[in-house]
Amino acid sequence: MPAQDSRDEPHAPDRTGSDGEPGAPAPAARPHVVIVGAGFGGLQVARGLADAPVNVTLIDRHNYHCFQPLLYQVATATLSPADIAWPIRHILSRQANITMLMARAEGVDRARRELLTSEGPIRFDFLVLATGATHSYFGHPEWARFAPGLKDIEDATQLRRRILLAFERAEVASEPETRRRLLTFAIIGGGPTGVELAGSIAEISRHALAPDFKRVDPRTARILLIEAGERLLPALPERLSAHARERLEAMGVEVMTGRPVVDMGADHVTLEGGETIAAATKIWAAGVRASPAAEWLGVAPDRAGRCRVAPDLSVPGAPDIFVIGDTAAVTDSKGRPVPGIAPAAKQMGDHVAAVIAARLAGTAAPGFRYRHAGDLATIGRNAAVVKLGRIELTGFLGWMFWGVVHVYFLVGARNRITVAMSWLWNYLTYQRAARLITGDVEPAPAREIGPLSPPA
Amino acid sequence: MPAQDSRDEPHAPDRTGSDGEPGAPAPAARPHVVIVGAGFGGLQVARGLADAPVNVTLIDRHNYHCFQPLLYQVATATLSPADIAWPIRHILSRQANITMLMARAEGVDRARRELLTSEGPIRFDFLVLATGATHSYFGHPEWARFAPGLKDIEDATQLRRRILLAFERAEVASEPETRRRLLTFAIIGGGPTGVELAGSIAEISRHALAPDFKRVDPRTARILLIEAGERLLPALPERLSAHARERLEAMGVEVMTGRPVVDMGADHVTLEGGETIAAATKIWAAGVRASPAAEWLGVAPDRAGRCRVAPDLSVPGAPDIFVIGDTAAVTDSKGRPVPGIAPAAKQMGDHVAAVIAARLAGTAAPGFRYRHAGDLATIGRNAAVVKLGRIELTGFLGWMFWGVVHVYFLVGARNRITVAMSWLWNYLTYQRAARLITGDVEPAPAREIGPLSPPA
Repeated sequence: MPAQDSRDEPHAPDRTGSDGEPGAPAPAARPHVVIVGAGFGGLQVARGLADAPVNVTLIDRHNYHCFQPLLYQVATATLSPADIAWPIRHILSRQANITMLMARAEGVDRARRELLTSEGPIRFDFLVLATGATHSYFGHPEWARFAPGLKDIEDATQLRRRILLAFERAEVASEPETRRRLLTFAIIGGGPTGVELAGSIAEISRHALAPDFKRVDPRTARILLIEAGERLLPALPERLSAHARERLEAMGVEVMTGRPVVDMGADHVTLEGGETIAAATKIWAAGVRASPAAEWLGVAPDRAGRCRVAPDLSVPGAPDIFVIGDTAAVTDSKGRPVPGIAPAAKQMGDHVAAVIAARLAGTAAPGFRYRHAGDLATIGRNAAVVKLGRIELTGFLGWMFWGVVHVYFLVGARNRITVAMSWLWNYLTYQRAARLITGDVEPAPAREIGPLSPPA
Repeated sequence: MPAQDSRDEPHAPDRTGSDGEPGAPAPAARPHVVIVGAGFGGLQVARGLADAPVNVTLIDRHNYHCFQPLLYQVATATLSPADIAWPIRHILSRQANITMLMARAEGVDRARRELLTSEGPIRFDFLVLATGATHSYFGHPEWARFAPGLKDIEDATQLRRRILLAFERAEVASEPETRRRLLTFAIIGGGPTGVELAGSIAEISRHALAPDFKRVDPRTARILLIEAGERLLPALPERLSAHARERLEAMGVEVMTGRPVVDMGADHVTLEGGETIAAATKIWAAGVRASPAAEWLGVAPDRAGRCRVAPDLSVPGAPDIFVIGDTAAVTDSKGRPVPGIAPAAKQMGDHVAAVIAARLAGTAAPGFRYRHAGDLATIGRNAAVVKLGRIELTGFLGWMFWGVVHVYFLVGARNRITVAMSWLWNYLTYQRAARLITGDVEPAPAREIGPLSPPA
């Protein structure tokens, strides 16, 4: 709880006030904390240092903080990007000791104590790397263009474009085989993101899109959820996994477990054993790989590319450099890896802010201790699975809990209201508010184009 | 009033019903109306033919109808794209005789009576070209990349990116001269779009952005509104033009009239007389050119590229082909050109639907007669200019009128509520809801990059 730790410190100078006046404390004497990444972890460090006697620079390649847990709703046309993203500098505008800079981090010069960015180097006294994770295609980087993943707003609008365009192209296509391929959606990976995407695509095809097409029936779309492991949602108890599977199947999703993907192309996906399925749209929700923080620091990463850290989350041998969130390899008190979820990143952010404040105050900080609150995933209308300690929720109750938690953690009153209203409207009308195909549309392969007959 | 004209016709077959059953009227016997473009004009034709004994195919390169009059609010971060765009096939989903296809029109084969599209040719009995207009750079197409215009959603998100990025880059820049250039916005063209953009950029820099930056002061941004003619808003009376100018100047906009632009580059704009102004962001709101409908039809266009039409809006010599909206050269009863505004396009759409219905019924249709309802433009908070017949409104009253009219004409209850709520929120908080930099960010020119010093 860094904020409390430093409440007795003199306040940071008023930003509209006396910084430049003679007699004011020389600000250059304050240590400079550079935070890279304004996700859940980085933002929490920034907030935790609000009252600490430091100058903070927060660097991100985007100008917004994105609420990743709801990205799948942007990808499936329920929410608009602005509903789940908020300008970073606005979130922090009342915090006097912070500057936000939009730049891309490119490396660390440990000897000169500089972060290297697209806009030039920046010197630090403390460095916090909260740079997150990206998709991992398990040694098949060429799959990325066939099966994009879902990590940021650009990914989400790209997926939205691909999903909606598949229906539009099926409506234009003349060959039944082409229509079939265009109306087949393969989601690879049965974790929360895969489950949420599969459920949401099933709903949009069965409800929002169904009445609007004249030449194809969107309700006939095949939605495949392909998981290499033995069950969906492995972080949850088996009973809840089985429940999620049943609900997805009732919604029309074909769930395939124990089926690793071994090949894919623009038009197909092939499973272990040789089954090849014609599917125009493929989405990757299977694996993640840490951002290259370990590489920047010149330390050996773990198998998932994450940076190993000391008990206080600093880099061994570099006590002033911290790594947190999805790019840090951290274990809990029982030696299990801390999962790559928002609450874990926030806890690490709180911890690092406390450690920095304690160092400056000359006091000792305890080691990081992860507290797991629970796991949850939504499946669709009135259906979610939730595990909180010994409590397990499913159905309407689980779904309401999921919704309230997600709205609660959104940044800003306006986003909370907008998202809640969008959900209510979606619930009452079955419609999706953001069915827009935006961005560059890749031309259709020539073989999809047939003569356009007048409607029969 | 085409809908009334054909109310006595037998209803079109229910789309979920008997089309394919033996004994049903052979649908191939119905004439096929192909409409290109789902803007205000094309959509109105489609709606007007709801009860006519025709099959209609509506073709658009986007899957959405965009409410162009509010595009500038997307460009300036007040609204999200989905707030002012709605899936075309959803708008028309209850209309049994319409199929919507997403395709790009590429030409017309008059001999074979086929529209040529990106997805193949489509045969028509009646063709309606409602393909709108694009920007015209008066013989300087190379200016397009320096000064994008504002005609569709992609333009709007691109402009939003450029405007917000200019502030972000100014915050990073170290040279005062670079900051000055990055904080100078030149809007070229003093019609309604130029006035609305200038007012909105002035507001965002003075209010929404002002408290969030630490190294530059967004309130010092220069906003230039450059008009070649003698006054702003030439369609309005001189008194209202002068009022708009006063209000804009009070908001901090530098209005320059009688100043044609003669040159521009990535970093500057040069006015007649030789004055060169360093401005990183330039926006084109000066001229439009019709889409190439005349070229497709092999007829000579007028000076603005528009297709000359007969009194019933058909193409001379091709009575079954109609051209409407911004791409048609039409005059009113006094011989003045009909303006390129939404109500004009809608009136032409109504008219063409009535002409087609009359032809099929064997009755005569009157020639098109334009009724001008009025002109209006918003300037900013509590400020707009409105001219309706003899009534002139300004200030809060004009602004309320402008808002009510625009919300009223939006498609769909949800968009009306969302836009009204966004405006209320914006009015109360001075904030903008959609301050996202999305899409590919062009790298900053190397000379903008300086050492990033820690905040002072």
